[in-house]
Amino acid sequence: MAMQANVVWKDGMAFEAHLDGFNFTIDAHEKFGGRKLGPMPKGLTLVSLAGCTAMDVISILQKMRVKVDSFEVATDGVLTEEHPKKFLEIVIKYIFKGTDLPLEKIKSAVTLSMETYCGVYATLKPTVKLSHQIIINGQAAVED
Amino acid sequence: MAMQANVVWKDGMAFEAHLDGFNFTIDAHEKFGGRKLGPMPKGLTLVSLAGCTAMDVISILQKMRVKVDSFEVATDGVLTEEHPKKFLEIVIKYIFKGTDLPLEKIKSAVTLSMETYCGVYATLKPTVKLSHQIIINGQAAVED
Repeated sequence: MAMQANVVWKDGMAFEAHLDGFNFTIDAHEKFGGRKLGPMPKGLTLVSLAGCTAMDVISILQKMRVKVDSFEVATDGVLTEEHPKKFLEIVIKYIFKGTDLPLEKIKSAVTLSMETYCGVYATLKPTVKLSHQIIINGQAAVED
Repeated sequence: MAMQANVVWKDGMAFEAHLDGFNFTIDAHEKFGGRKLGPMPKGLTLVSLAGCTAMDVISILQKMRVKVDSFEVATDGVLTEEHPKKFLEIVIKYIFKGTDLPLEKIKSAVTLSMETYCGVYATLKPTVKLSHQIIINGQAAVED
């Protein structure tokens, strides 16, 4: 299976990213000449991971007929201090709100994504320390 | 060094991604209930890699006083056919147009990004087969 993206230089440090027929501007940090025209590229790895696993989980929960009022995935990355500043560790927080949310079904959906479906998780797992938390109505239900 | 992103469920399979003070919509493929409201999350890994190395390269070339007319980085990924559909291989194409572009300086800028500066490249390198091409005015100048 093949997948393609590209980034085209505009000016300064701004590039236009093209993906799946959409485009958006990315830019460098101001200390490297960026002008806050878009998000910085490195964090898109965190969005890629969060989005991939979040879509798995909501899709599985919908199949299980679990109804959530709100759902968010936050990815907190830790990078090396020295160049190249690569990801050492990412904590994935699955944050749910709702009434009568069934913890076992939620744990099962999260595990299925991490172990079976999420290709970004599987790509990063051999090289980045990945851990996760499940937070339901503000309370940590699972931490690993 | 820490870095954070999150994705908040909107409806269907659409999520709003938040990164560096910007937000944009991501969506699933239509066969998984997406409605083409934004790019899919997995390819953001390719944008992250392309953007990270592209910004390094243009910044280094500017310091070397190399003037390019146009510059683009394309990332072509190959994924596994089975779940989890992870990245096996990514070809990074550095595509330049201009007059009198000095190949040695361009090779040096690309090598510096890959070996020294690009944190996304360094994150993926242990787990994904990464290769690159330098294409100048439509001609492949370097392939590895």
